[in-house]
Amino acid sequence: MKVLKTIKEMQEHARTLILKGKIIGFVPTMGALHEGHLSLVRQARKDNDIVIVSIFVNPIQFGPQEDFARYPRDLEGDSIKLKNEGVDLIFYPDMNDMYPVGYRTFVEVQEISERLCGAFRPGHFRGVATVVTKLFNIIKPHRAYFGLKDYQQTVIIKKMVQDLNMDIEIITCPTVREPDGLAMSSRNLYLKPDERRAATVIYRTLLEAERLMREFRKPEGVKTIMFDRLRSEPLVTSIDYAGLYDPETLEEIKDYSEKEEVLIAIALRIGDTRLIDNMIVKL
Amino acid sequence: MKVLKTIKEMQEHARTLILKGKIIGFVPTMGALHEGHLSLVRQARKDNDIVIVSIFVNPIQFGPQEDFARYPRDLEGDSIKLKNEGVDLIFYPDMNDMYPVGYRTFVEVQEISERLCGAFRPGHFRGVATVVTKLFNIIKPHRAYFGLKDYQQTVIIKKMVQDLNMDIEIITCPTVREPDGLAMSSRNLYLKPDERRAATVIYRTLLEAERLMREFRKPEGVKTIMFDRLRSEPLVTSIDYAGLYDPETLEEIKDYSEKEEVLIAIALRIGDTRLIDNMIVKL
Repeated sequence: MKVLKTIKEMQEHARTLILKGKIIGFVPTMGALHEGHLSLVRQARKDNDIVIVSIFVNPIQFGPQEDFARYPRDLEGDSIKLKNEGVDLIFYPDMNDMYPVGYRTFVEVQEISERLCGAFRPGHFRGVATVVTKLFNIIKPHRAYFGLKDYQQTVIIKKMVQDLNMDIEIITCPTVREPDGLAMSSRNLYLKPDERRAATVIYRTLLEAERLMREFRKPEGVKTIMFDRLRSEPLVTSIDYAGLYDPETLEEIKDYSEKEEVLIAIALRIGDTRLIDNMIVKL
Repeated sequence: MKVLKTIKEMQEHARTLILKGKIIGFVPTMGALHEGHLSLVRQARKDNDIVIVSIFVNPIQFGPQEDFARYPRDLEGDSIKLKNEGVDLIFYPDMNDMYPVGYRTFVEVQEISERLCGAFRPGHFRGVATVVTKLFNIIKPHRAYFGLKDYQQTVIIKKMVQDLNMDIEIITCPTVREPDGLAMSSRNLYLKPDERRAATVIYRTLLEAERLMREFRKPEGVKTIMFDRLRSEPLVTSIDYAGLYDPETLEEIKDYSEKEEVLIAIALRIGDTRLIDNMIVKL
């Protein structure tokens, strides 16, 4: 398994692979890899000749008060996991190579970037769209893999790829959960033991919302019960959002009658840790 | 010479060319081709295996009060010129293919997009950066060619390519002028005969500014004389800007002492027609 650390080397290597007719599968990550990431890697391994994983904690997708500095980093552990999955190459760029002094260019997907998490993390999805564009230009993948735990991110990336005519297939993979239902996330490492137990309220609330939806309770009623359930957990310090949304526009749903699919989504804080989760329900 | 009209066909064709190891040179245009465009095409013909020219009047780079609707269009005349230059392929996309309903993604190069023309044409360079990104993703060129008449555009495109790590070489070519010095522009077609004669004031003013600069007159003094010269032409209806600027940052120059190069630039209106021109002076 190769590790490349400069954009120049990575770009030259990608050019060579393409000229050889190799099909490249790409998994962009911020490291601190868990089974969710590895499920993307395994899918990429099945679909492509070459699997490239990037590890880069992208500063421009963090707000000034967010956890950029303390975001978990573990290149050594990550490398062992990726080698075991048969990954061909890790791209591990330096921050100054990615964002040199005088950096000024940003990619923005309007409207869907401002909803849900976007309303609480201004600039976050602009940072995501920008770094993904850069990584796509550097690695030139045929396919790129994203986890559905970050559902809004997948909608934005797909829209960006379509709008900017990027010649890349975006593949989304299901959320991987712990045995008690908690969605895997690098940020779960922040949770103290009692917070970790409390965090199961998120998945339990998603399941309850799904059940209520299937009984065709009104969206507002479902939302009220979701908030009640989440607030009943004392370690939940704040709720950014919880409710039912259109899976494409991410707008809040007031009426199911013409929907085939509904997104149930939650973002909240347990202690200082912000966690998100979601579920797509087919009606 | 091939003409492709859909993004899908163009993208598939480009993919095939790259797999064959062909080097692609690309000249993006809005059509109504003149010798300035053809000088780019000739340079591309010299440098590459395949030359692709796009013709697309990009709506999102025009303001609501600007000349999108009346911008000159002449596909037949353009095709003959390009065939004569040995162009391999014209990409002539449809507006609804480029910007389908629900289009939402934009590329923005901050700061340098807000200066000079950017201050008078809000959103213009965002439109340019966005369409160029799309065309690069569709055509996948190794080299792309831009004329220095649109100097600010070349600075913005180079910055965008560098920041977003697009693996493309940007080549700029000198402004081509009419015998009396007027910079070639598709918008010159708008000028009535007396306006066409009056338009020579722009180049004469650039030459005079250069002479004054070489005498090391103070930038403010040069600017004052430039405005005087331009205003002395009765058909000049307004001046957006005229003066001396840093060729990289596009900021106005207050002092030459540490500059190796200076950009002299002018934007004004003759009748209803907005014209721009510039000159780089090496000190």
